[in-house]
Amino acid sequence: MSNTSAPTMHDKLTNMELLTLDNPVFCCYLFWATVLVVKMLLMSLLTALQRFRYKLLGLVPLAVRRKVFPNEEDLFFKNIEVQFDDPHVERVRRAHRNDMENILPYFIMALIYVCTNPNPLVACNLFRVAAIARIVHTLVYALYPVPQPSRILAFATMLLITFYMAAVVALRTLRFI
Amino acid sequence: MSNTSAPTMHDKLTNMELLTLDNPVFCCYLFWATVLVVKMLLMSLLTALQRFRYKLLGLVPLAVRRKVFPNEEDLFFKNIEVQFDDPHVERVRRAHRNDMENILPYFIMALIYVCTNPNPLVACNLFRVAAIARIVHTLVYALYPVPQPSRILAFATMLLITFYMAAVVALRTLRFI
Amino acid sequence: MSNTSAPTMHDKLTNMELLTLDNPVFCCYLFWATVLVVKMLLMSLLTALQRFRYKLLGLVPLAVRRKVFPNEEDLFFKNIEVQFDDPHVERVRRAHRNDMENILPYFIMALIYVCTNPNPLVACNLFRVAAIARIVHTLVYALYPVPQPSRILAFATMLLITFYMAAVVALRTLRFI
Repeated sequence: MSNTSAPTMHDKLTNMELLTLDNPVFCCYLFWATVLVVKMLLMSLLTALQRFRYKLLGLVPLAVRRKVFPNEEDLFFKNIEVQFDDPHVERVRRAHRNDMENILPYFIMALIYVCTNPNPLVACNLFRVAAIARIVHTLVYALYPVPQPSRILAFATMLLITFYMAAVVALRTLRFI
Repeated sequence: MSNTSAPTMHDKLTNMELLTLDNPVFCCYLFWATVLVVKMLLMSLLTALQRFRYKLLGLVPLAVRRKVFPNEEDLFFKNIEVQFDDPHVERVRRAHRNDMENILPYFIMALIYVCTNPNPLVACNLFRVAAIARIVHTLVYALYPVPQPSRILAFATMLLITFYMAAVVALRTLRFI
Repeated sequence: MSNTSAPTMHDKLTNMELLTLDNPVFCCYLFWATVLVVKMLLMSLLTALQRFRYKLLGLVPLAVRRKVFPNEEDLFFKNIEVQFDDPHVERVRRAHRNDMENILPYFIMALIYVCTNPNPLVACNLFRVAAIARIVHTLVYALYPVPQPSRILAFATMLLITFYMAAVVALRTLRFI
């Protein structure tokens, strides 16, 4: 699993250098974590965009009919009411919630995993696959709904990677229970 | 509060070594954070399990009556509709949301707390109690609903621990406001 | 952007010392992250307070009419039912969810940003502005609803700061893609 036996270039790093830019594994984590943070924040903007969808096209009557703003102070027209159950908005919100449920624990788990000095090749590829899987998940969930199992596969990819990292860390730290 | 006065074995660590596997407090944090990450991810699977509950038993007619999938592409039978308010599914989702509201800030707070070089005995026991409290919270909330105040006590335990850590960190870093 | 050219007092720090209390930028991050963690946890208590609002005033009949507890075991009166759509409770919950969507990714992003050894003056002020913006966001969203664009401005402030940090980190780590 981890490189406790095989000597690699990476073994020269001391424990103190693991969370620095001198560690290529940490740099790889930084890059892909940044990509996922940006992706998550764009979900907020996508939700707002869905709320304004018809307004952006200038179709005020449709906007009046859709009225999907959850707060009274967000209503820009006097004759519309608060609403919560627009299917397009709710779909983006479910995708966003799924992101929070999976990506935020992954951030902590992957950071912890870097501290155990994993094999660089394995670790970097896990970071890459996990990040790309979640981008695919967003595409097939929030942007272009695609028949299953595309979304389940994308979801399971990051889940299994996080479980693998958890197993590695738990085995290394088991005696500190 | 923290071991600024009493000399302990732990005092030999320099600041640079705090976030490494040489620090037993950090290892203890790693182990229990891993446990909580796995617990949170299992909530996703528990939600999915609740949606499929009757299907797993092969009781198709009941599944048709329950129809608790929020996305159209998740429907495996043509004659069922999208639904959002199944009480069993929503209970697990509330428990999961409560996890996100409390455990994710705790991850950051506890990691920050390790950086302040706390007393090892205090810190390790806080990590253990907080993690076990949240496991109890999940059991009495999502799996076997139990009369209050069991859930409130489990919830308050991690909340108070996080507030204690916040107080320690804030006092140490107050001059950098 | 970052202090790669201008020599400052901060340049004396080695990479290894970035995530220690010897680094004033990290201490500043610790303080303001602690403030935001406490703010987020207070949202849980505010939600509970909204649910008990009338009960705290001793107005039992109003409490019976409002009946805003989502779980059956939380009902303290026999003649009330479970309810989910109280506008005051839901407003606090939306504010809390918005916190999770924005502050939790910010915690990771800002921690990562500290690892790139940013200019101390820029970094500390970003931490301060971001934290204060979110406190304002909570005040104008959950406590005293104020006409737009006050909330959008507070929301956009942290979002833009997070995007800036993401850009800095991504540029530094782009070759580890």
